Amino acid sequence: MQGAVFDEDTGKVLVVQDRNKMKNAWKFPGGLSEPGEDIGDTAIREVLEETGIKSEFKSLLSIRQQHGAPNAFGKSDMYIICRLRPLSFHISFCPHECLKCEWMNLTDLAQTDDTTPITHKVANLLLYGHREGFEKVDIAMQELPSVYVGLFYKLYHRELPELYENIARMD
Amino acid sequence: MQGAVFDEDTGKVLVVQDRNKMKNAWKFPGGLSEPGEDIGDTAIREVLEETGIKSEFKSLLSIRQQHGAPNAFGKSDMYIICRLRPLSFHISFCPHECLKCEWMNLTDLAQTDDTTPITHKVANLLLYGHREGFEKVDIAMQELPSVYVGLFYKLYHRELPELYENIARMD
Repeated sequence: MQGAVFDEDTGKVLVVQDRNKMKNAWKFPGGLSEPGEDIGDTAIREVLEETGIKSEFKSLLSIRQQHGAPNAFGKSDMYIICRLRPLSFHISFCPHECLKCEWMNLTDLAQTDDTTPITHKVANLLLYGHREGFEKVDIAMQELPSVYVGLFYKLYHRELPELYENIARMD
Repeated sequence: MQGAVFDEDTGKVLVVQDRNKMKNAWKFPGGLSEPGEDIGDTAIREVLEETGIKSEFKSLLSIRQQHGAPNAFGKSDMYIICRLRPLSFHISFCPHECLKCEWMNLTDLAQTDDTTPITHKVANLLLYGHREGFEKVDIAMQELPSVYVGLFYKLYHRELPELYENIARMD
């Protein structure tokens, strides 16, 4: 999971450069889920651990599935990027994981060559959302009760207009 | 993974009822991914095995994450519903898995009470897409080259207008 922490007021987005990489590409902070952890909770926790920034979940932005990558233990990996809203702004980054960490202008991130193709793509999605409304890029989330009493699940999909949300079921 | 196989020409969608369930709810056919299998490939394979219908991948429609369900081996499960287009129409369903299988009018599926909450929600998404354009509901897919030579990955996100796709990177 990765968290794209975007501040709508300043137009800045939180980016890091990893330690010990050949190319110092700007990326969104993130890491692996713990077993049983929610997608959004992982993104929020990893952002906090890596950068010291507190945030809240807004939506999913992008999902990557990749097979057979050298560092993936022979498995397919699902890599999900969430849109987060910052709740704090003072960076205190983890020096073991990060070489650099900063609030960067989103337009600069969308234009720089010092980034990964996926970060570039998500920067463009954020720019589109920031300029024309995040309902154009969000994969929104709802929490719903499971058939198992006391359990809930989270469902991610495009927003439905109220007309279509409320199609009557015959009871 | 599940496959919502929808035929735009007739307005019908492929649904099944599982064997050995307490309540005979209409659902989309589907099943578990094999290790290393693509999301869309799983949906297409499971639909074919369960119902005999051939189909092609169009988009993701919805993602559910659930924790601690009784039949999930103590793990969190990710459950993804794909929109598929039928390439054949003659049903030949697997009697070990299915009690019934049919092409149902999408409007009937959206209104019936004999279904699961997630199938109901996805029926509403399909109805919205069918009436107002599938670009309103699709989480679209792109295949892109990996940094590892010869490998590709698939990236799922909302469609970006060309203006935002082509923001120049400084090379």
